[in-house]
Amino acid sequence: MRDLDAQETYLADRLGLAFDLRDLVGSGPVPVLRYAPPYGVVGFGEGWWAALLARDFASEFTTRGTQFVLEGGYDLGGAAGAGLYAAAGGAEVVRLGFRENAEVEIRAHPLSTYRYLRFLLLATGHKAELERIDRALLLERERLRPEVGLEKNPAKFLAYTLLERTPLWVVPERYPGLAQALQQTFGRIGKSLSITPPPSALEFFVTSLEARHEQGDPIVAVLLGDDERKRYAQEILESRVDTLVELPEPEAEGTLAKALCYWYRVAWASYYLALLYGVEPGDWEVLEHLRQAT
Amino acid sequence: MRDLDAQETYLADRLGLAFDLRDLVGSGPVPVLRYAPPYGVVGFGEGWWAALLARDFASEFTTRGTQFVLEGGYDLGGAAGAGLYAAAGGAEVVRLGFRENAEVEIRAHPLSTYRYLRFLLLATGHKAELERIDRALLLERERLRPEVGLEKNPAKFLAYTLLERTPLWVVPERYPGLAQALQQTFGRIGKSLSITPPPSALEFFVTSLEARHEQGDPIVAVLLGDDERKRYAQEILESRVDTLVELPEPEAEGTLAKALCYWYRVAWASYYLALLYGVEPGDWEVLEHLRQAT
Repeated sequence: MRDLDAQETYLADRLGLAFDLRDLVGSGPVPVLRYAPPYGVVGFGEGWWAALLARDFASEFTTRGTQFVLEGGYDLGGAAGAGLYAAAGGAEVVRLGFRENAEVEIRAHPLSTYRYLRFLLLATGHKAELERIDRALLLERERLRPEVGLEKNPAKFLAYTLLERTPLWVVPERYPGLAQALQQTFGRIGKSLSITPPPSALEFFVTSLEARHEQGDPIVAVLLGDDERKRYAQEILESRVDTLVELPEPEAEGTLAKALCYWYRVAWASYYLALLYGVEPGDWEVLEHLRQAT
Repeated sequence: MRDLDAQETYLADRLGLAFDLRDLVGSGPVPVLRYAPPYGVVGFGEGWWAALLARDFASEFTTRGTQFVLEGGYDLGGAAGAGLYAAAGGAEVVRLGFRENAEVEIRAHPLSTYRYLRFLLLATGHKAELERIDRALLLERERLRPEVGLEKNPAKFLAYTLLERTPLWVVPERYPGLAQALQQTFGRIGKSLSITPPPSALEFFVTSLEARHEQGDPIVAVLLGDDERKRYAQEILESRVDTLVELPEPEAEGTLAKALCYWYRVAWASYYLALLYGVEPGDWEVLEHLRQAT
């Protein structure tokens, strides 16, 4: 078993993802132009979750003002569809992403959600919200970075718990898309599969572990927050999965900041997990081929 | 290994789910009143997918006409939220589900999606669409029912392929919610876990099988239809999963009818899988406890 408190374990991180994780707050492009309201935000590929989070402060489509299109990439042309631009009507279309035609360049990256969201918050006059997010992420970082030993580091601890197990993400309904975002981050950084439940999750938990609960990979239920649904899920899953892990609610103001804290915490845990498996936590190389193909 | 062409295998079906599968077309309540347009349809619990499918012919909310609320159940009171009824404004609210206060009773059932949708199509004047769906489902049934031997029965064949494996559902984007609906049906009838990919799936397929592809349960990628995305997914997954299965596009007119055919096919396959595991395919008993608790 590799030791997350030993320096040689970090040699697997050849592409230096640890620096991107550490320096996430404040990274990415900032607006240099003024964008007229009202605002629409639609997202494809990598940009899907940032666009969903933007529902907090912008609509999906607008025919006046500014229509932001998070192109993401790996989208097989979804973002370039004629219908989309027709829907924008008289709005100015601003494309963010890593395709050649993007007005704002955001490179493909497992942490790009933060950078899309930061640009959008600044461009739409929500600087205070961004500051709340950044403060909360910096607080998280202080507990999660490699210099903090296992004893005091919840992300390292989580990585050991997830090792050789398949996570099942149990997320409160007030965080739209968070379960899928965790699944994606865990896949791209931790290089491992995990399970998100369907929308009506409680009966899924009751039934879907009946036939095979002693076969295959042990499941670890990762429970976020603490609401009524989580307590039911916990009661149901307790006797059906190998292990339960509870992620306590982050010290952050507002749903948006809390959602990003959870995501950042799982990104760090996925990073440590990749190191435990001895695989590269970055994904530039594996994705370059896909980027060229699509 | 149990034999799906042998009568004794069907003894595990104590609750008679085979009859519900066989008699699905035409089952469920029909409207006895007239409902004024325009129509809104919102869904919770079990009703979530039917409400999503209804986006084809109704909006989510309406403040005039009729607001249908698919209560589903197991929703911890989500459907009863005061905000929802305030949003309905001057619209008549019609509740469908299995709670005491429902105007239209639809009992909790792994196949209830069809019944919710059938009622909505009839109540909103879309009889022709329902007929297209029913014709397509009856065609599917002729190939999928227990009397058709393994050689000619794609659902029995699929069940043997899924046995002792974990399915990963790869669904074209034009079928919103279908992957989650298959996951739910496979859980409730087949009593087994399966995996749905996040919205931006291609990079997930590339990365998330890197670390552990030789451990745990073998994954079977179940690929629906035949579009560009499916062909990329197939190319990526081919070398990364244990087996690939392709589900050919159903003989049906329109996306809605095709979506229901896929779902019906996986429901039959889940039924046969439960029999192969020797577990009860019905879920009334296991869910009764949950229904009372919530």
